[in-house]
Amino acid sequence: MTCLLMRAAERAQLAMMLEVCAFPKPGNVDRCHDYPETCMEHFLASTIFARPALEEAERGEGRLGEIIHHAVQQTNCHKGGNTHFGAFILLIPLVYGGSIEGAMKAIERTDTSDAVAFYRAFGLTKVRTYSEDELDVNDPKSLAELRDREMTLLDVMQHSAANDMVAREWVTGFPLTRRGADLLRQFGNGRQAIVQMFVTLLSQEPDTFIAKKHGIIVAQETMRRAREVLEGRETLENFDQDCIDRDINPGSIADITIAAIFVALGEGWEWDS
Amino acid sequence: MTCLLMRAAERAQLAMMLEVCAFPKPGNVDRCHDYPETCMEHFLASTIFARPALEEAERGEGRLGEIIHHAVQQTNCHKGGNTHFGAFILLIPLVYGGSIEGAMKAIERTDTSDAVAFYRAFGLTKVRTYSEDELDVNDPKSLAELRDREMTLLDVMQHSAANDMVAREWVTGFPLTRRGADLLRQFGNGRQAIVQMFVTLLSQEPDTFIAKKHGIIVAQETMRRAREVLEGRETLENFDQDCIDRDINPGSIADITIAAIFVALGEGWEWDS
Repeated sequence: MTCLLMRAAERAQLAMMLEVCAFPKPGNVDRCHDYPETCMEHFLASTIFARPALEEAERGEGRLGEIIHHAVQQTNCHKGGNTHFGAFILLIPLVYGGSIEGAMKAIERTDTSDAVAFYRAFGLTKVRTYSEDELDVNDPKSLAELRDREMTLLDVMQHSAANDMVAREWVTGFPLTRRGADLLRQFGNGRQAIVQMFVTLLSQEPDTFIAKKHGIIVAQETMRRAREVLEGRETLENFDQDCIDRDINPGSIADITIAAIFVALGEGWEWDS
Repeated sequence: MTCLLMRAAERAQLAMMLEVCAFPKPGNVDRCHDYPETCMEHFLASTIFARPALEEAERGEGRLGEIIHHAVQQTNCHKGGNTHFGAFILLIPLVYGGSIEGAMKAIERTDTSDAVAFYRAFGLTKVRTYSEDELDVNDPKSLAELRDREMTLLDVMQHSAANDMVAREWVTGFPLTRRGADLLRQFGNGRQAIVQMFVTLLSQEPDTFIAKKHGIIVAQETMRRAREVLEGRETLENFDQDCIDRDINPGSIADITIAAIFVALGEGWEWDS
């Protein structure tokens, strides 16, 4: 199949597309469900518009922080707001390095300029942060602080790792991305494996996006509900509807799902077999 | 809005994405409906994979026939079969020329090499042709015939125009593409205008893809049904289900819809306002 020769940038776009289309994905945008302000087409438009930044990463030129900044800039060209900030944090080093190993090497080489570029990218989004966060991205003093402390982008991720599972992937070597890719291969070829993998991750790890928005109790309850679905004690449809009704969207596990699809596609998993 | 600065290649990809997502589109693949062999994700994968050919067209380098060939090659990288052959016939000259006027100038400059490249592209698809077609694309003699008769790609389209509304756009100056773009602006900003435009075109013109597959009577009956929907005498949902049950898919009007969205986006119509 020609797809094994697929470019890394295209593979990343395919991963972004397949993740948003997969349905039913409890609480998240999918073929059957939009958010009031952000619809599936916004996610797909971002998938298209991110191409130049993903190609930059593919060439392995430039710096990670700057490329993440470019990806966020390029995908700001619609009214759906931030769609893929967390996904880019994972995808850009993966595309840059070509694999989890390569991504880790690239991550180790980040410096303060990456941290500054990243905070500028963060400033373009409306991503939720802790109010008690020491380095508030909306505070201009934060950039000076980063420089004073000589923090690299890896240091920034270390700083966020306790409360953000996407940042934690950088610090710990992409273990959930790895687990997601393994689950896809375990569930077998075909797009239906994506929902199975998503619900499995959701049953195993509290989603930190949910935790930031609703608190850790709700994140843990969502885990428990996902387990009930896997054990056949609850339907996926009921779980989805309940998440939608309560505005619970597992955004961080969606980001990790995209990274996992990217890795699995590179290892021969086929979405349309 | 930054989107007015959107590159033509991206605008074409956006048009392809918006068309396939629009729902409910009677008989065609959309967010709520896949074909047995071809799902929405295949259309979206083609949207991603066509980027290099669309960029080639955007640069205005090379020849139309060859670029259409490249677009078909690049989108063969999945198991969903042909998704956008007709759309590329319209989009490639539109992207190349930047507008309908520009496309017509590019079309007039096609020669026999374009015709040969186009027939090679056709050979990669499984697009339905008339059995009585003089120039069977599966017959190697056709290419020799093209050269002997010194047919340009415009001549080939002229040859097909009577029975193929996409080819007819080349010969007649994109009148349905123009009408579709005008309808979008008339219906106003927002993705819901796409379905309104699609059903309106369907009510006004017999779809030649339906005619090739089921005969002109069925194509005319589909027109009549679309009119009933517009007049409120039938629901869009019933019409859609009936088309699906009878395997009636208005593929040519879908191609023209993509071209119309491309033109409208370039004229300031906004899909997400």
